Amino acid sequence: MGRLVMKFGGTSVADIDRIRNVACHVKREVDAGHEVAVVVSAMSGKTNELVGWCAQAAPLHDTREYDAVVASGEQVTAGLLAITLQAMGIQARSWQGWQVPILTSNVHGSARILDIDGEELIARFKERNEVAVIAGFQGLNKETGRITTLGRGGSDTSAVAVAAAIRADRCDIYTDVDGVYTTDPRVVPKARRLDKVAFEEMLELASLGAKVLQVRSVELGMVHNVRVFVRSSFDRPEDIDPHGTPPGTLICSEEEIVEQQVVTGIAFSKDEAQISIRDVQDKPGVAAAIFGPLAEASINVDMIVQNVSADGAKTDLTFTVPAADYTRAKDTIAKAKGKIGYQRLDSATDVAKVSVIGIGMRSHAGVAAEAFRALAERNINIRAITTSEIKFSVLIDAAYTELAVRTLHTLYGLDKA
Amino acid sequence: MGRLVMKFGGTSVADIDRIRNVACHVKREVDAGHEVAVVVSAMSGKTNELVGWCAQAAPLHDTREYDAVVASGEQVTAGLLAITLQAMGIQARSWQGWQVPILTSNVHGSARILDIDGEELIARFKERNEVAVIAGFQGLNKETGRITTLGRGGSDTSAVAVAAAIRADRCDIYTDVDGVYTTDPRVVPKARRLDKVAFEEMLELASLGAKVLQVRSVELGMVHNVRVFVRSSFDRPEDIDPHGTPPGTLICSEEEIVEQQVVTGIAFSKDEAQISIRDVQDKPGVAAAIFGPLAEASINVDMIVQNVSADGAKTDLTFTVPAADYTRAKDTIAKAKGKIGYQRLDSATDVAKVSVIGIGMRSHAGVAAEAFRALAERNINIRAITTSEIKFSVLIDAAYTELAVRTLHTLYGLDKA
Repeated sequence: MGRLVMKFGGTSVADIDRIRNVACHVKREVDAGHEVAVVVSAMSGKTNELVGWCAQAAPLHDTREYDAVVASGEQVTAGLLAITLQAMGIQARSWQGWQVPILTSNVHGSARILDIDGEELIARFKERNEVAVIAGFQGLNKETGRITTLGRGGSDTSAVAVAAAIRADRCDIYTDVDGVYTTDPRVVPKARRLDKVAFEEMLELASLGAKVLQVRSVELGMVHNVRVFVRSSFDRPEDIDPHGTPPGTLICSEEEIVEQQVVTGIAFSKDEAQISIRDVQDKPGVAAAIFGPLAEASINVDMIVQNVSADGAKTDLTFTVPAADYTRAKDTIAKAKGKIGYQRLDSATDVAKVSVIGIGMRSHAGVAAEAFRALAERNINIRAITTSEIKFSVLIDAAYTELAVRTLHTLYGLDKA
Repeated sequence: MGRLVMKFGGTSVADIDRIRNVACHVKREVDAGHEVAVVVSAMSGKTNELVGWCAQAAPLHDTREYDAVVASGEQVTAGLLAITLQAMGIQARSWQGWQVPILTSNVHGSARILDIDGEELIARFKERNEVAVIAGFQGLNKETGRITTLGRGGSDTSAVAVAAAIRADRCDIYTDVDGVYTTDPRVVPKARRLDKVAFEEMLELASLGAKVLQVRSVELGMVHNVRVFVRSSFDRPEDIDPHGTPPGTLICSEEEIVEQQVVTGIAFSKDEAQISIRDVQDKPGVAAAIFGPLAEASINVDMIVQNVSADGAKTDLTFTVPAADYTRAKDTIAKAKGKIGYQRLDSATDVAKVSVIGIGMRSHAGVAAEAFRALAERNINIRAITTSEIKFSVLIDAAYTELAVRTLHTLYGLDKA
């Protein structure tokens, strides 16, 4: 017997039939003897409807009111699921963010969870054998007593935070994919589902992971050591053995991963643009002169590559930005030309970033070197390289993305048998 | 300068355009220097959608969960109206029932308001010049901290209760009719809109009044002496002179009605069935034997007529029930025949009740006698009569309803010039 959080997203609770399916999943775990808290999103489409109304009422609006409006979506689902569970003979009650309470910061629209008191939920597991159905995505502004929301995808974060608060053995995230893959299976048909991924790896998997799980929820899981299990919401409840090991990916601390691969996965992103600044003065403060204005313009800079200059006077500096911010970024740099002092601006939008991630890299030398060799053999030119402890990324021409990903996937032994 | 509550129903807030129209009404009052609290219903159709989902999830469901689901409708409108007002440059914030808080009894689904602390709302009028936009229909169960709803039409009650709590000068109820009429204008084209109606009269107008205002809100207005003004939500905000007297009906204490008519209005209902029990033993306890079982079956008995028996041994007893309960009522009486001891059961469903209401009746004798004479002249047979201090009702054949109502309307000088 254990304690579980089960999280279901919008498509899983899109209508009463789907909610009934969710209730069957919950019943399975209750029948197996688990104490269960369920975290739910709004019925699919509802959040968009509510957001649309706010925008229609006023394009720029008070985020406190936005939060009051939009949080109603999860409130509805929580009540409906509680009713459905009760109809199946399961003790259940709904909890809104302010009822638990889930206390958050005061940044309406994208608040951060500060504290959840899980003791009453736990007491009710014990005393009443009651399932807690918790509205995801929302909380209570501790200072003002007003409703907050956590931003899009916030229900994942709610689920992990609740799991930490009630000291759950596991937080099951039911999604429309059945786990985290070594890379995008649409690009590499031989991509394998990973049984386990370390929190740190999941964070670095970014482009792969973001489709599966909100980044903030992974951070929270890492901090509180909440084991997060990504599994499919399409599995039929009656087909699942509650005592068996269901298909899915467990995101956990690296200690729990016994047979650690050197490389866990290959992520990639074509949504990149490269800007190179030529012949920059190699002196203190020049990086600040470049990246200060970009930050002020809210442009997210990703890779930054600066080489040591040969003569100690001039250097080249390359960075990438999201393709959508390309023109704005170029204009921002051009405007700051006087302050930065550079010769020429080169740029490209047909570039892609390919990243190789694996905790095993920490203890294995030469992992990146193998990749450079393999890419060279395929005549793929590397424009820039960055490395971190458990990841390295290369910037290449976008046309070679799929070839590069497949090459590296095979190289590191990730192809499925 | 005064303090106002403005209440808008579902059709008045059906979409963002309609909400903008409501905001214009509010702006008009704010610009005129009033302190304003607005009470809103759910966007039309939303409550039905939410109720439908609950019923689909389980026909019999936990009313606490039902309340959590259904209360979300008003929450959305309150936020959207606050956003819209802000966009017009008006300070505004939304309040949910639990935030004010509006404390209620624990009867989920049809809770009664117990207490509202209006002091923070008042403080915000003074300090911030802020309009309070309050979600109607909902409150907080004081003991459990869960959301309650007041039952259908409860937003009227919310509005009057808020008006009492903030000591408002008036509670304006914006509806799809422009006031209370002397009778149904569809039946009597000469029906006049009343400028003022006493609370007691409004309660007795029942069938007329119920379409305009929830009965409970009138009771509350009477107890707390809240002046309730029924007016049209279709009036264009720009056409209204905030300093003039808008068209509508004021429901107020009788002291405020200077020129009191003897008769205020004529109500009628065809939704009646008559049951007559013949040759009942005229002895103590027989009425209890009849109406006890009906009460247990939750059948609402309206008129009750029992005549003194001639010989002191047997009597006839007639009562009316809603047409929908007719068969159940007959069966209930038949089952209790042994206990009641009667000879025969007569009944009819093609009957109507016509009621004449007026506080002036208290001090005017012979008002009912005039009616009996006028109906007799039209050959309308009176099946039964009941009277109260400010009302009398006659039961007649349903076919004569319109004729009777028109006859009495003219008789008492209610026809418009």
